[in-house]
Amino acid sequence: MTLRLYGSARSRVSLPRWYLEEKGIAYEWIVLDSQAGEHRQPPFLAINPFGKMPALEDTALVGPDGGPLKLFESGAILLHLAELYGQEFSSAGSGDAATSAVRRALTAQWVLFANSTFTAALMGHASRPEELTRLLGVLDGLLGSGGSLLAGNGGDPGWGAADCALQGHLAYLPMFCPSVDLTPYPRVQAAIASTQQREAYRRVMGLA
Amino acid sequence: MTLRLYGSARSRVSLPRWYLEEKGIAYEWIVLDSQAGEHRQPPFLAINPFGKMPALEDTALVGPDGGPLKLFESGAILLHLAELYGQEFSSAGSGDAATSAVRRALTAQWVLFANSTFTAALMGHASRPEELTRLLGVLDGLLGSGGSLLAGNGGDPGWGAADCALQGHLAYLPMFCPSVDLTPYPRVQAAIASTQQREAYRRVMGLA
Repeated sequence: MTLRLYGSARSRVSLPRWYLEEKGIAYEWIVLDSQAGEHRQPPFLAINPFGKMPALEDTALVGPDGGPLKLFESGAILLHLAELYGQEFSSAGSGDAATSAVRRALTAQWVLFANSTFTAALMGHASRPEELTRLLGVLDGLLGSGGSLLAGNGGDPGWGAADCALQGHLAYLPMFCPSVDLTPYPRVQAAIASTQQREAYRRVMGLA
Repeated sequence: MTLRLYGSARSRVSLPRWYLEEKGIAYEWIVLDSQAGEHRQPPFLAINPFGKMPALEDTALVGPDGGPLKLFESGAILLHLAELYGQEFSSAGSGDAATSAVRRALTAQWVLFANSTFTAALMGHASRPEELTRLLGVLDGLLGSGGSLLAGNGGDPGWGAADCALQGHLAYLPMFCPSVDLTPYPRVQAAIASTQQREAYRRVMGLA
């Protein structure tokens, strides 16, 4: 198998796995026993020295150590999958090089936003609730009725890595911040509901 | 001018600006008066609806609204600059397509690591100091004597976006977490000292 994804049932690994399932990309799914600390033991530390999940091995590419390319950070894994396996930025898929460049840039923007700015607001919600509600207010204005972020860019490129990162993080909201009232954000609510109905998402999250 | 970078003197805008200066890429530098709340007013909200700096306009590309491409998130701006202006991943620069793909993936990995995992550890240092020291310990083992992260990959690609993001965040350490003892991390200390000696860094940070 070209792609090997390492993770555990309840970690941010779910997002790259959801991407692979949505796109029908073949991969091997390797579950680590995080309760037993398997992610902090030498075999996995050779893949991600920080001992954090998820991590990806791509055996189609050669990494700096001469072995398969090893990649950590869920956002970087998503961008790599979008680039080489989801064909989201290929000229063939998007029409021309400029459209590819724009789509690649905006996808990185939303992945960075989800994994840094939005995650920081989620994690800091107890001490600074106003930051999360401010972000949600802006997002509510930006999300289209279909919930897709890049829909306006060069026709509808369909569901992609930007949606996976942002929609995945929005769907964490009811779990991580159940006290947040989502009534003022109908499009955010609709986006969460839409995510929760996707078959691949339900399968990966164990909701199916 | 093709590139317009928006920011203020003291924000994470410094990292893309440092990149542009190191690489000698021409850009217009537009300073917003954040104390007067200029970043939360309509002109800038049309560029970044979240009202956060930095933001970039790339007039060589057309964004979803028909105007110049507008991009936010410092990490996404860095990746965009590395892709199109620093030529870090071009086949011409790196030899072949596989090397380009590996370098692009690893650069995204380090930018995501710096902007999400490492930033979270920096910001949460008061309540969870052990996470920051764990990351620093691993980084100390990974940093080469020259401090470059991708040096082992396909020859030495030189200073790039991965270094800009990670070294820039390491150099924040003495500022944001002056209580952290860096003595156990000699390579981290050397990397910070090396960053602080770079001319472009000193110019951007107002240290020159």
